[in-house]
Amino acid sequence: MLSKNQIKLIAQLKQKKYRIQQGFFVVEGLKTIQELLQSNLKLHALYTTESFNIDAKHEVLISERELKRISFLSTPNKALAIFEIPKPKPVNINGLIVALDAIRDPGNLGTIIRLCDWFGIKDLVCSKETVDCFNPKVVQATMGSITRVNINYVDLVDFLKETDLPVFGAFMDGETIYTKQLPEKGVLVMGNEANGISKPVETLINEKISIPRFGDLQATESLNVATATAILLSEFKRRI
Amino acid sequence: MLSKNQIKLIAQLKQKKYRIQQGFFVVEGLKTIQELLQSNLKLHALYTTESFNIDAKHEVLISERELKRISFLSTPNKALAIFEIPKPKPVNINGLIVALDAIRDPGNLGTIIRLCDWFGIKDLVCSKETVDCFNPKVVQATMGSITRVNINYVDLVDFLKETDLPVFGAFMDGETIYTKQLPEKGVLVMGNEANGISKPVETLINEKISIPRFGDLQATESLNVATATAILLSEFKRRI
Repeated sequence: MLSKNQIKLIAQLKQKKYRIQQGFFVVEGLKTIQELLQSNLKLHALYTTESFNIDAKHEVLISERELKRISFLSTPNKALAIFEIPKPKPVNINGLIVALDAIRDPGNLGTIIRLCDWFGIKDLVCSKETVDCFNPKVVQATMGSITRVNINYVDLVDFLKETDLPVFGAFMDGETIYTKQLPEKGVLVMGNEANGISKPVETLINEKISIPRFGDLQATESLNVATATAILLSEFKRRI
Repeated sequence: MLSKNQIKLIAQLKQKKYRIQQGFFVVEGLKTIQELLQSNLKLHALYTTESFNIDAKHEVLISERELKRISFLSTPNKALAIFEIPKPKPVNINGLIVALDAIRDPGNLGTIIRLCDWFGIKDLVCSKETVDCFNPKVVQATMGSITRVNINYVDLVDFLKETDLPVFGAFMDGETIYTKQLPEKGVLVMGNEANGISKPVETLINEKISIPRFGDLQATESLNVATATAILLSEFKRRI
């Protein structure tokens, strides 16, 4: 059985201000919850229609109907868990770092986190205008990768001013990535969905890079930021 | 003013069976509609809160409130248009063709259509189990690219049996794309989000290819199909 307070807490965690206030975030779906249970994350509560056989203190068995009531999904998937928001580690500057300048779409951020995980990128740095990575839609889209990428929200201009690493930025009119020498260590900045990289950040970019377009003049003007990140990370990592 | 029949037709076009029956599909948003008006597509009706200055026969000025009533979006964007579904041209086998084996997510299909446009892929072939490309969410995600890619829905097994082109398929355990010689002409098959390429299609693949994973053993098991398509198309097109 769910208490009124439990229902209220879950509903609140849809909003960033309550996530910050309470220090918790919500995860849904059997597979993702199982992955998070095996990570370093601390479980606060698990509401589930089937027992996970974890300690009774954290697990609450509920009905399908109760799950439907608390779920953020249109088709709830067996369980909903509340985890503690982890404290990010300091940014490790010994590799390639992805930096996001005001990415707004939760699906895009989730996909980029999953890409970082795939390509072995340990650190993701987000401007304060970027959507919160503990937004339920972001967590869902990461498919568990959120536990394996260290995410810091920073003043991006300050961060780029202070770094000694070469700073690459994705632009429409940059140098083609297919011939450019790309280093193992550096920062790759990806810009906002509608406006690209902002002016103050642009002044701190050392190397503007582009994905060449092969379609004709009428072809689409741009790629989605998550698919562009996929292509750029692949180019940074391939060493041939 | 909107008539009852107009409202009914728009509502019906959310469903594939009515799109097939009526031969129309819906597009929303100023920018995408403008792009489609400049293409070969035939406009059936345009419902808009601001005049596009096109012929009065097709344009119907409506209020914001009326737009909210007919729109499929939670935040409607100034206009909704109905276009005739174009007849696809036969598949042109003089280049790289992308073939989809039961892609279900409208956002993924839309993103893949936009990627085809960017990379100059003229032909997209979809298995009959693939989501309909005139689904409003797909059209929205293509950002206008739907007018520039020739899309055929086929029996994918028959299509692959009949083609003389080399058939590449994306698998988890294929040969790495970073060292493989990729031809200018061929078919690239991408599989379903959850199950990958189906068994009957797999038997018709000549070359299994993979995107190497750089993350450690715990890293995510797979990439989203749209981001994987982005990386593969970039590899097929880069000639360095």
